[in-house]
Amino acid sequence: MSEKKRRRGEAGPSATGKKSRPSSRADELRKQLKSDADILESIRRMSAASKSSTFKTLTLSDLNLSSACREVSDRDSSSVLLSIERAALDAARSILSGSGFSFDIPSRSSSNQLYVPELDRIVLRDKTSARIFANLSTVRKATITARVLSLVYAVLRRNIHVTKRDLFYTDVKLFQDQSHSDAVLDDVSCMLGCTRSSLHVVASEKGVVVGRLIFYDDGDRIDCTKMGIGGKAIPPNIDRVGDLESDALFILLVEKDAAFMRLAEDRFYNRFPCIIVTAKGQPDVATRLFLKRMKTELKLPVLALVDSDPYGLKILSVYMCGSKNMSYDSSNLTTPDIKWLGIRPSDLDKYQVPEQCRLPMTDQDVKAGKDLLEEDFVKRNEGWVKELEMMVKTRQKAEIQALSSFGFQYLSEVYLPLKIQQQDWL
Amino acid sequence: MSEKKRRRGEAGPSATGKKSRPSSRADELRKQLKSDADILESIRRMSAASKSSTFKTLTLSDLNLSSACREVSDRDSSSVLLSIERAALDAARSILSGSGFSFDIPSRSSSNQLYVPELDRIVLRDKTSARIFANLSTVRKATITARVLSLVYAVLRRNIHVTKRDLFYTDVKLFQDQSHSDAVLDDVSCMLGCTRSSLHVVASEKGVVVGRLIFYDDGDRIDCTKMGIGGKAIPPNIDRVGDLESDALFILLVEKDAAFMRLAEDRFYNRFPCIIVTAKGQPDVATRLFLKRMKTELKLPVLALVDSDPYGLKILSVYMCGSKNMSYDSSNLTTPDIKWLGIRPSDLDKYQVPEQCRLPMTDQDVKAGKDLLEEDFVKRNEGWVKELEMMVKTRQKAEIQALSSFGFQYLSEVYLPLKIQQQDWL
Repeated sequence: MSEKKRRRGEAGPSATGKKSRPSSRADELRKQLKSDADILESIRRMSAASKSSTFKTLTLSDLNLSSACREVSDRDSSSVLLSIERAALDAARSILSGSGFSFDIPSRSSSNQLYVPELDRIVLRDKTSARIFANLSTVRKATITARVLSLVYAVLRRNIHVTKRDLFYTDVKLFQDQSHSDAVLDDVSCMLGCTRSSLHVVASEKGVVVGRLIFYDDGDRIDCTKMGIGGKAIPPNIDRVGDLESDALFILLVEKDAAFMRLAEDRFYNRFPCIIVTAKGQPDVATRLFLKRMKTELKLPVLALVDSDPYGLKILSVYMCGSKNMSYDSSNLTTPDIKWLGIRPSDLDKYQVPEQCRLPMTDQDVKAGKDLLEEDFVKRNEGWVKELEMMVKTRQKAEIQALSSFGFQYLSEVYLPLKIQQQDWL
Repeated sequence: MSEKKRRRGEAGPSATGKKSRPSSRADELRKQLKSDADILESIRRMSAASKSSTFKTLTLSDLNLSSACREVSDRDSSSVLLSIERAALDAARSILSGSGFSFDIPSRSSSNQLYVPELDRIVLRDKTSARIFANLSTVRKATITARVLSLVYAVLRRNIHVTKRDLFYTDVKLFQDQSHSDAVLDDVSCMLGCTRSSLHVVASEKGVVVGRLIFYDDGDRIDCTKMGIGGKAIPPNIDRVGDLESDALFILLVEKDAAFMRLAEDRFYNRFPCIIVTAKGQPDVATRLFLKRMKTELKLPVLALVDSDPYGLKILSVYMCGSKNMSYDSSNLTTPDIKWLGIRPSDLDKYQVPEQCRLPMTDQDVKAGKDLLEEDFVKRNEGWVKELEMMVKTRQKAEIQALSSFGFQYLSEVYLPLKIQQQDWL
């Protein structure tokens, strides 16, 4: 580590605007900080627990639900290719026997969705419908399904990845509108019982990662401690990601890129071994898959740093529980057990965030907050309920960057170290 | 290079949907492709011309305009610190002599802007106004200016980087609204004659880069041929980027991340040595600075791949000419002489893009196209005028991904190689 880097990584009194504002509370908190070794001890215990935990993500078959419900899983190309070949053979056999052909498509409608509390996920029930070729009302969809199957087959055979938009453009005449090919792609995914990533149809990525992680992206070894301040862009194709290695003690999930930049520039991960990841706002599929992958393979606790507002919690919920329209894929996209580190409504007073750095919540914000209080993922966590109730009651929200009022590096030098030292997460 | 990678990089007939559609033109064009060595010869000449060109970006002083006009330039921290100290000393001296103090602020209003055809840039004229502390109408702005100067000073002294939002949050009571601190930051930048990056106030990045480029990001060596498919996130702080090295023959500027992903996965840069960069839509400041830096230091031609619509050309114009509200910083942000490779309106017929993959232009699109025809950067290039006139006349637009109708890898295997072979750029 160069001298320059070390200097920036060091804790020290902020040079910024201390005298012009009463920030005695900030100084007081700074003084509470123990040595880095002591602080690390706090997280080490949690990290060890996470690694040794025999906790296993429950599956549908653990609950004897595998025949009544349906989920998809990651499968390798050769097995997906085999399934498509089998579907084609079935169709051919059916045609030769004079019965025409049809596809048996799982229903993805909300009436066929089921929330399984034990899994804390939404899954699909087993309702399916026949998509018959020789039927005026289903012939178009059956044709599109056959076409999508053949396109996916070609993609897998070439061992490349494409986007939904690419898929649409290969036959605009048939698909007419991208929503039609997109919907059938989801059908095909359910029908074959594999994730959309297994079909090699990927979403564009916008997430970045930095810190104590080494992985392979399409055969290239990526050392995320050597990715400067910009970090490594998270790859769109998770199946080309492999061999994750890490000596980190935790994963720090950050809502916004400004906070990410602060932590990357301060090389926060050198002082507190961690992996820092952000989707720069609303989580995209690639970042969610990447987080899930890290959590599963490295068995690290995940601490989340989001704005103290309903939107910040909603972002957490997408990482944890997924979104309704991808429910059939929920087990592959969701990372349960994320700890809410901050910024929490109670932090505003604890850290004495100045009044003028807090923002008033709009009526819509308050409604969103109240709606969240009805959500299962919130209700299961008493601490979260209390925090949310406080947010709705005080009608105040705050961004992560509000901490800049105590100095630009307060986040990396005081707030986060103290949070970890006090094991202050929910 | 692994066997897998080489295979994907190879040219070959597309396996996708060839027989189901009349794509004889696509096959015909594929047959026109010469050997890679021959194709490379086409670009090598252009690249060599670019490297040996004694062409120098004109400056205001070349035109004897440096006293009448004003521009900012990149300056190192120590020189900016010195300027701030000098401003503070001037103020102190003025106060001690009983005259109070004021700042001399360059006007950034449009009446003070000047388009200099020789530079093909907008610059500021020399009008300034006194921001007097002891005057009711300017006391607030003078105070904010002093505060921003002191904040920037602290940032530079600590050798860190912050965002505009961070700056705002350090004194919400004074700034009240972020637009106030943002505006004064631009004033300070003009007053000190340095870029916003020189003040270490950075914008969040969203661009990615991949290909034949090695550079240092905050001291870490980044080899962009080893960044997998995801690529390297472009760093927000350009002053920490250094030591660019490349054996590329050109820079390929791509509008959208889907096309970027296609080229990254196919390792297009291994077959045709190039650097591939995208801002994923509207260009952000970090990506513009990075492109400018590559172009200037590596002296490589820049070829642009954008959608065939007015929006694609507007994106080109932002890279080339900048935006009006950053006019004082235009020489640092703009990359003149970008070649329009495609997708061009004439390509739609040349490549026989199927009718159903072309999109009708809305009235608003057509108006935007006509407005572009009035812009100087278009008018200077006869070829561009013709293409735009064709677009407006046919009222058809097309996305880069429309090429997927000829096979998912048509872009990397046929379209781009043929474009280069035929030196088909404007």
